[in-house]
Amino acid sequence: MPVTAPQSSPAGAASSTRTRVAIAGATGYAGQELVRILARHPAVTLTAAMSSGAAAGAARPLPALARIWDGEVVPLDVDRLVADADIVFLALPEAASAELAPKLVERGCRVIDLSGAFRIRDTAARAKWYPATTALPAGTVYGFSERNRDEIRSAKLLSNPGCYPTAALLALAPLAEAGLLAGNAVIDAKSGVSGAGKAATERTHFSENHGSVAAYAVFQHRHTAEIEQELGSSVTFVPHLVPLDRGILETIYGTLKPGTTEQQVADAFTAAYADAPFVRLTGGALPEIKHVAHTNFCDIGWKVDTERNRIVLVSIIDNLLKGAAGSAVQNLNVMLGLDERTGLL
Amino acid sequence: MPVTAPQSSPAGAASSTRTRVAIAGATGYAGQELVRILARHPAVTLTAAMSSGAAAGAARPLPALARIWDGEVVPLDVDRLVADADIVFLALPEAASAELAPKLVERGCRVIDLSGAFRIRDTAARAKWYPATTALPAGTVYGFSERNRDEIRSAKLLSNPGCYPTAALLALAPLAEAGLLAGNAVIDAKSGVSGAGKAATERTHFSENHGSVAAYAVFQHRHTAEIEQELGSSVTFVPHLVPLDRGILETIYGTLKPGTTEQQVADAFTAAYADAPFVRLTGGALPEIKHVAHTNFCDIGWKVDTERNRIVLVSIIDNLLKGAAGSAVQNLNVMLGLDERTGLL
Amino acid sequence: MPVTAPQSSPAGAASSTRTRVAIAGATGYAGQELVRILARHPAVTLTAAMSSGAAAGAARPLPALARIWDGEVVPLDVDRLVADADIVFLALPEAASAELAPKLVERGCRVIDLSGAFRIRDTAARAKWYPATTALPAGTVYGFSERNRDEIRSAKLLSNPGCYPTAALLALAPLAEAGLLAGNAVIDAKSGVSGAGKAATERTHFSENHGSVAAYAVFQHRHTAEIEQELGSSVTFVPHLVPLDRGILETIYGTLKPGTTEQQVADAFTAAYADAPFVRLTGGALPEIKHVAHTNFCDIGWKVDTERNRIVLVSIIDNLLKGAAGSAVQNLNVMLGLDERTGLL
Amino acid sequence: MPVTAPQSSPAGAASSTRTRVAIAGATGYAGQELVRILARHPAVTLTAAMSSGAAAGAARPLPALARIWDGEVVPLDVDRLVADADIVFLALPEAASAELAPKLVERGCRVIDLSGAFRIRDTAARAKWYPATTALPAGTVYGFSERNRDEIRSAKLLSNPGCYPTAALLALAPLAEAGLLAGNAVIDAKSGVSGAGKAATERTHFSENHGSVAAYAVFQHRHTAEIEQELGSSVTFVPHLVPLDRGILETIYGTLKPGTTEQQVADAFTAAYADAPFVRLTGGALPEIKHVAHTNFCDIGWKVDTERNRIVLVSIIDNLLKGAAGSAVQNLNVMLGLDERTGLL
Repeated sequence: MPVTAPQSSPAGAASSTRTRVAIAGATGYAGQELVRILARHPAVTLTAAMSSGAAAGAARPLPALARIWDGEVVPLDVDRLVADADIVFLALPEAASAELAPKLVERGCRVIDLSGAFRIRDTAARAKWYPATTALPAGTVYGFSERNRDEIRSAKLLSNPGCYPTAALLALAPLAEAGLLAGNAVIDAKSGVSGAGKAATERTHFSENHGSVAAYAVFQHRHTAEIEQELGSSVTFVPHLVPLDRGILETIYGTLKPGTTEQQVADAFTAAYADAPFVRLTGGALPEIKHVAHTNFCDIGWKVDTERNRIVLVSIIDNLLKGAAGSAVQNLNVMLGLDERTGLL
Repeated sequence: MPVTAPQSSPAGAASSTRTRVAIAGATGYAGQELVRILARHPAVTLTAAMSSGAAAGAARPLPALARIWDGEVVPLDVDRLVADADIVFLALPEAASAELAPKLVERGCRVIDLSGAFRIRDTAARAKWYPATTALPAGTVYGFSERNRDEIRSAKLLSNPGCYPTAALLALAPLAEAGLLAGNAVIDAKSGVSGAGKAATERTHFSENHGSVAAYAVFQHRHTAEIEQELGSSVTFVPHLVPLDRGILETIYGTLKPGTTEQQVADAFTAAYADAPFVRLTGGALPEIKHVAHTNFCDIGWKVDTERNRIVLVSIIDNLLKGAAGSAVQNLNVMLGLDERTGLL
Repeated sequence: MPVTAPQSSPAGAASSTRTRVAIAGATGYAGQELVRILARHPAVTLTAAMSSGAAAGAARPLPALARIWDGEVVPLDVDRLVADADIVFLALPEAASAELAPKLVERGCRVIDLSGAFRIRDTAARAKWYPATTALPAGTVYGFSERNRDEIRSAKLLSNPGCYPTAALLALAPLAEAGLLAGNAVIDAKSGVSGAGKAATERTHFSENHGSVAAYAVFQHRHTAEIEQELGSSVTFVPHLVPLDRGILETIYGTLKPGTTEQQVADAFTAAYADAPFVRLTGGALPEIKHVAHTNFCDIGWKVDTERNRIVLVSIIDNLLKGAAGSAVQNLNVMLGLDERTGLL
Repeated sequence: MPVTAPQSSPAGAASSTRTRVAIAGATGYAGQELVRILARHPAVTLTAAMSSGAAAGAARPLPALARIWDGEVVPLDVDRLVADADIVFLALPEAASAELAPKLVERGCRVIDLSGAFRIRDTAARAKWYPATTALPAGTVYGFSERNRDEIRSAKLLSNPGCYPTAALLALAPLAEAGLLAGNAVIDAKSGVSGAGKAATERTHFSENHGSVAAYAVFQHRHTAEIEQELGSSVTFVPHLVPLDRGILETIYGTLKPGTTEQQVADAFTAAYADAPFVRLTGGALPEIKHVAHTNFCDIGWKVDTERNRIVLVSIIDNLLKGAAGSAVQNLNVMLGLDERTGLL
């Protein structure tokens, strides 16, 4: 039954002034969030949504997005990406990104890659965790808007951070850079099941997760390498699946240098995020996942035990937004010289 | 620890041209959604958020809304509502609305009431289901934008529909009005627990709902009266709590007049909602709650058994948005002569 | 790391006096429940647990059952079933049961089949819904212990009822047989996701079900044929997946013959289930899924509207127990002349 | 409508030979589990179930337990406890236990207390965390069956361990006692919401937990004192609520003494639990909550990083069973000289 959207978009601006963007991998969970955000973003036009899977060409591949974006999902097509888009978002498996991104950059597109393919700078470490990625193209920048805006502005290939590293680094980096930490941190991460991706496996079956919690990839998760690269120190990182769809809460256990005060901790955070519209500092009122679900915020709270020089941090994000599609668009905004919040608040 | 929002809102327009709105009952689940929507609505200024409960004056009454709306939640104050707002949203229990709404109307405010206090026109039925409401003030209009836009435009007191009636009536009314239905419908409704409100009771305890489903108020739910008033016929309506937070799915069992075709059903819907931006007709591809959660859409699908003249309809909404705060703002948009989608898409 | 169970089973009886049972399909959700029950059942010895899938031979195929049953799961093997078991439980897909059951019966085993292969007596209907089953072997009995104990006692091939029909028929049959019903019933069923089986599909993915509800197979579910066969009248049956693991709640809408009293309804149920240890009648206190999860009970409650001759019934079961493994063992107990509750309470 | 259980219990033994037990606090979540277990326990007779709350005298206070235990729930009555029970289970708030337990012991009852009132031996620490408890009666024994059977046998007042300490100590104590640990452990605990008790509060509201995770009581949970008392060293313990009903998973981060091997770790566990029927060691196959829900097992797995001398342990229990009612009955079995598994497997 044909159903047509009766009115034109109320957000409609002159499309000639907009940046043309496209998405490769539009039907995965992060890809769908990209479609949702970019279709309503006032400074871009979404010219193509592509999928390498069976969803391409399906009658209603994205039923939740009807009336928000009613375009077709088409098979992956590099020539069309180059022809139709100034900036291409890749929400693909690592191997696909590793192959596709350099081609797009070479042919003049800027790329925002949501996979891990281009996150690790050390060649040996990358060979271990992302063996499909043989080199980082010139102009590759890893980062998120809160940490290295200036580099991001001119990136050719923006390597968007992993979901777990985003929550971990936003919480730990200010303390590390202020010189307040001693020893190595423990990061206990709890993630919603959408973080495991859309593939139907025993691991993502409803009945295996409902009423359960499971640790996985202990000492073997590749996000560990990313966190350690950015933090410059070793961490123990254990991710868990918890029975909810979206959101990550990380409980981070750190040791403070003797004599560190609560005020020094608060000052380090306040200074680090004075200009960060999506980082909300909650101090001793610890944040809960529901505060950030379906938003691009990262909320960070902490408790300090000054007697024993211990700190417990709680850092939360929506893994599909601040942990993927949201931070990718935030990076896009920086690349385009826009207010970081454009299309995201 | 004080945290300040670093930038002004990117949606900021000249506040002098905006309609001033206020919310009484801002900390309930529907009230919080009103804050979220109205704080970002480009045509209004949210001048006050009030609560009659303990949340008023709390340090961080709405942690999820920080940076979206950082105003104070203050105790309920009629004089201040009259002074500061052109239009007042009431997200209060029925008895509180029944007392407050007439006063506000009398003193010149327009009111959008989300309670059931003013929904029932028949005096005897109202006395049974909403005994606190002794009369409907002049200028009271019940309705939602899809059904009676013209009346809504000039409403003094807009009585916003109930959550269950919204999903039921959007599905059944077009068929009833096209004369396709025979006999009485059965409406089996499944609602998320936020529909039971924010009060902490045994009924809303996590452990009573997780892993469970419960029918309630069989033959005794006051939304039945509202559905029957609008539909003009008797229905059997049974609501259930299902273990999710937000969303309603209603499965509606109807009998078609002999000889009714699938095309007639499709035509009735297409005609009814040609101009309805928030009703998405999915035909035989039945919608699921996750398609509309966190949106203002109502998705309607159906299956017809032409041999036995039976129809099964599935109608879904987010109970806090299309079933409460969203449709209230949609009605606001109609009252202000704006595109219905303003602030909602 | 080897871990051994330190003690012998406290339930241990002389195994020579026990009936030997085996399970084909031991790693599916119903199959695991069979293992759990039969391993502790005081009158049987579980001699083999078989799987046609990859689980056979896995190091720890059933981690939840360690110390309850520490046997090996082996590949499906008909000869071994015949050699080692007096009674074989089949928890297999329909086509596998259709092929295997007649062979086992022919070679002298009694069979309890949990699939739908042998439920439908009418040849044409069976050809439509279960095309792999060409005939019902002599000695095939469909039933559950509450309905036809006498036939079950001597069954060669016991066809265990479907999960949805169990809840529906236990609620509707007493009223139908007492002649209290007029017209056709509507059965709105809500099932946990384990009912969709252990196969990893988009339908069973956690993220597709969490926070959602979906109707499926409207007018096309084969359990409809089973309900109609047993009830002798047409029904409208719509199943839904709700976001919980185990349990079914069916809300059943019936029309009573004019003049039917509440007492007549209560009497019909009390008479029907005077000797039924697993049917709990709750009258006007409607049951909720959590009351029966992880048990073999079926709880039935009801509300009557005598003015309009309507009845709403609520019938709940654990789909894996009373809807599958539990009722199969209850039938086993009847077949063996034991108290129906043996091993189940 | 009267419903009667048609048959006598199949587990029925001569009641004259049974120990008489009673429960004070039978309608809380742990109390209901006690009823469920003790009603079917072959060596005891449940003579009274009492509640201090509104549930006492309710028509159907325990609908899930109908046919399992159909006795009345009566108001708390010390004289009746003394008259009717040899052993009394207290599943009450700390203050109530602190007042009641000494009276019962003085009047000749043995007591198994599930509250924290009598867990802390150090007077100053107890005054801080359990101020209602002024002294430990003579004959008070803290413990669980895996750790100090001999003391438990003769206990007058058995102080049952807390849920979090149970999972933590079963995992850490063997390593500590084998001298393998260096430094202090971090214990990150994830608990189902039933652990927060049956009181209806904002914290236990369904909508506050669904789709969310929250840390609480950081550096301030009284179970920390219990863990540190038993372990003899300081720990950092942070509990979280996760959106499931029952179960605890603790991820425990330890530092091993340099040179510790995997085999030493495995040996320490194997030796510690050679005779422990409810501890299942899973080694490198990490356990998940669903493996132990609704059972009395504690499953423990671990991963060792020998390069960096780190160990991550995962310990899981059902908080209402091994973390409360189950371990209480296991302790009862020890006190009565029975197989520990009686009534629990």
